[in-house]
Amino acid sequence: MELNLKAGSPGGGMSAWKVVLLLVGVQCLHVAALKSQLFTRGDALDYSSRKAVDYKTFYLNQKIDHFGFFENGTFKQRYLVADQHWHQAGGPILFYTGNEGDITWFCNNTGFMWQVAEELGAMLVFAEHRYYGDSMPFGPDSYTDSKHLNYLSSEQALADFAVLIRELKGSWPGARSSAVIAVGGSYGGMLAAWLRMKYPSVVVGALAASAPIWQFPGMVPCGDFHRIVSQDFASSGPNCDVNIRRSWGAIDKIASTAEGLAWLSGTFSLCAPLKSRPDSVAFKEWLQETWVNLAMVDYPYEASFLQPLPAWPVQAVCRHLGFDSSVSDYQLLQGVSEAARVYYNHTGATACLNTSSTATGSLGFLGWYYQACTEMVMPLCTDGVQDMFEPQAWDFQAFSDECQALFGVRPRASWAETQYGGKDLSAHSNIIFSNGGLDPWSGGGVTRNISDSVVAIVIPQGAHHLDLRYDNERDPPAVRGARALEVDYFKAWVRQARRAP
Amino acid sequence: MELNLKAGSPGGGMSAWKVVLLLVGVQCLHVAALKSQLFTRGDALDYSSRKAVDYKTFYLNQKIDHFGFFENGTFKQRYLVADQHWHQAGGPILFYTGNEGDITWFCNNTGFMWQVAEELGAMLVFAEHRYYGDSMPFGPDSYTDSKHLNYLSSEQALADFAVLIRELKGSWPGARSSAVIAVGGSYGGMLAAWLRMKYPSVVVGALAASAPIWQFPGMVPCGDFHRIVSQDFASSGPNCDVNIRRSWGAIDKIASTAEGLAWLSGTFSLCAPLKSRPDSVAFKEWLQETWVNLAMVDYPYEASFLQPLPAWPVQAVCRHLGFDSSVSDYQLLQGVSEAARVYYNHTGATACLNTSSTATGSLGFLGWYYQACTEMVMPLCTDGVQDMFEPQAWDFQAFSDECQALFGVRPRASWAETQYGGKDLSAHSNIIFSNGGLDPWSGGGVTRNISDSVVAIVIPQGAHHLDLRYDNERDPPAVRGARALEVDYFKAWVRQARRAP
Repeated sequence: MELNLKAGSPGGGMSAWKVVLLLVGVQCLHVAALKSQLFTRGDALDYSSRKAVDYKTFYLNQKIDHFGFFENGTFKQRYLVADQHWHQAGGPILFYTGNEGDITWFCNNTGFMWQVAEELGAMLVFAEHRYYGDSMPFGPDSYTDSKHLNYLSSEQALADFAVLIRELKGSWPGARSSAVIAVGGSYGGMLAAWLRMKYPSVVVGALAASAPIWQFPGMVPCGDFHRIVSQDFASSGPNCDVNIRRSWGAIDKIASTAEGLAWLSGTFSLCAPLKSRPDSVAFKEWLQETWVNLAMVDYPYEASFLQPLPAWPVQAVCRHLGFDSSVSDYQLLQGVSEAARVYYNHTGATACLNTSSTATGSLGFLGWYYQACTEMVMPLCTDGVQDMFEPQAWDFQAFSDECQALFGVRPRASWAETQYGGKDLSAHSNIIFSNGGLDPWSGGGVTRNISDSVVAIVIPQGAHHLDLRYDNERDPPAVRGARALEVDYFKAWVRQARRAP
Repeated sequence: MELNLKAGSPGGGMSAWKVVLLLVGVQCLHVAALKSQLFTRGDALDYSSRKAVDYKTFYLNQKIDHFGFFENGTFKQRYLVADQHWHQAGGPILFYTGNEGDITWFCNNTGFMWQVAEELGAMLVFAEHRYYGDSMPFGPDSYTDSKHLNYLSSEQALADFAVLIRELKGSWPGARSSAVIAVGGSYGGMLAAWLRMKYPSVVVGALAASAPIWQFPGMVPCGDFHRIVSQDFASSGPNCDVNIRRSWGAIDKIASTAEGLAWLSGTFSLCAPLKSRPDSVAFKEWLQETWVNLAMVDYPYEASFLQPLPAWPVQAVCRHLGFDSSVSDYQLLQGVSEAARVYYNHTGATACLNTSSTATGSLGFLGWYYQACTEMVMPLCTDGVQDMFEPQAWDFQAFSDECQALFGVRPRASWAETQYGGKDLSAHSNIIFSNGGLDPWSGGGVTRNISDSVVAIVIPQGAHHLDLRYDNERDPPAVRGARALEVDYFKAWVRQARRAP
């Protein structure tokens, strides 16, 4: 995957890679936020990964196309198994429905599964999503063009999971009668819920952590995402959101002269100084992405994201943004630069800030762009009133045109709703939707109980799928309660499966 | 479709058409039976279609590929709407999930829907299955080769239905709050059940009539189908099954000489006299198919199948097969020939019997072969002990090789189970599985209640989806009761949907 990003990409050579960057820069409100969603799992290298996890790696031959027979080729899907705590006589299997990245990341950093394995006597399985990590349907050619990318979809991924679970139950000694529970976070949480919804015969239930399954057109207001980001900042320090809202105009004003651009470049220690008006637009997008990322990973303890972050990083940021209204534009932006350094230079080791990226070590973002450009259409918008950002409407046509230019495909805005049932979840059962109140993706999540067995757990002081992380002494009580409740549901589902004929 | 069969077919020209016939002749136990399943809907031209039905025809642009974005073309899916009895203020929609044939057939001959429309205040919609009737994804090229056939699958068809229902509810004045109920028979019944299982947000429930959703590998014994055929004959006249079982050896013996072949040809009034040993094998297959077809359409009143049939046609057949064990082979086969004429010459207008076919006016059988050769793998076998046929094992490899030769595709034996959950229906709701005790496909059907809302209705004296037909004064009481119960469930589902948030 990284090879593809560097050596080749849709459209050939480096051009598409540049288009990706352009897309991020210009069309920030949807794609950048998706990118942020992805990057959240950069916390793979988490401080709190306190123990080395021990698993074995396997590969299963999967059909490249589950839904057609003309393409009859197969590829090797990677999956990881840890069975040291498994009680073979019917002990359950916790099955992580891998999302847009290397599965070892998720395996190493879904501490919750590792922590509850012993209590549940559970086998852990982490299944990689096709087109990510090592699970490339066409090897190094997988990202060559839209023809090769054609089999990158949630439906194909769910089919992979269903086939893998049946294969495991049929071939792994002792697994036949094991109840399987799907677990996932973010897009992986959407997949966990959808696996239970579409293939209820393979999983007895699902924990969908921070899964924005309603972030599709017409289901929730497109502004909710950035409104929640802004609320996080508003509640993390006096005037914090107000000053970020002010900062955009201040940047515009200062960036209108060459001297101002130079001042900004120096104040922010930018690796690549701003040279022009478009540079300053990209600079604002980069800052916006930074604030969004911070809201998602606003964890109560030190954790590593793109760079290591302090506990409650949004509070740390806001300590630099407490100005009252008398502050000058220069003073304000000086504060913003210090706030940005919380994110990019917490350790003090960063020589300069690179505005071409808000993340390092990320995996799979080109794949996620493709998914966003096909079925994962998630409208985002800002109005500058309910949120602290510059107003930008959701423009589906512009988005579609960019997808066409980038991948040669056009998104289908209503397909996800048709395929996954939209807001009507009444016919389903045994799904937990957990969401953190600080997580902007909670705006597209299920935050109220649908029925006795499709339930919502809200963790007010939780960021993006905090409940899936290892526990920590600084965890808010709500996330401890959430994890305990999740385990209770798991046990109930396993009992229910044992009673079934 | 008919054009394709005559003018072109996979592999080019007439060759594949010949292969189809070969496939029927040699590999009769699976493909011929599927063909029979298909042909059952030949009863389109039913005597009991007592009134002209009145509908309007519409077309909806559907994506050729719902599950991939490389093929972004669309085709026109045909659907028929009858809303004369519809109560707009929330009256339900009965939605026929079209199967492998022209939708006007199903529309004209699913009398049950027409009869209950007024009582329910229901709109009727009959949706055509892609690749059948007028709904050709690539127009006349749809059956050209496996590349064009690639989008013929149950999954794509279900997606068509889901898209169509959402489109109707969004655009048909007054339909937004209408509860939709899926109705289908045979493969259409499987689709109705699967639509509720996979897309429960679009249909509140499903009536799956004579839907053999368990006729897949490993779910039911492969011999059940022909055992039920044989039971029908055993219970329809003394020695009837015994004499059919004896007939195969008698044919072999007599067909071993040229004189015997001539005698058989004359006695059966065959249009094309038997010339060789292979001819006599094909002759036996044709007879076997004839008995299978008869079991499926063993209705209590005159009805038209391939040819018009008398009431209780199996009893009429068995009147010619009541011999005791003293009968000679020639006498026995004389009786068999008269029995065959019940099926092929009830009206007396048939000059000679054509062994190359058991059906006329059939639609879509090439499409159904393709589906059987891909995901609809339904093992059938005979042992000559529990059934009245010559023993033939289920040979998946041979079947697969024939599919490869015919279409260039290989069937995936376990896919249907993975995709549709196999025998585990416990997570689903609001599905009626109705089956007739005379119908060989009931062997692969759901004939016991799964839960309070996934229920089975068995009609002991019913043949293939008798309950979906117009009522008739000669209907057995069980089918009257079945239809009444089905309507009760429909009403309950509609009430349930009204109560939902």
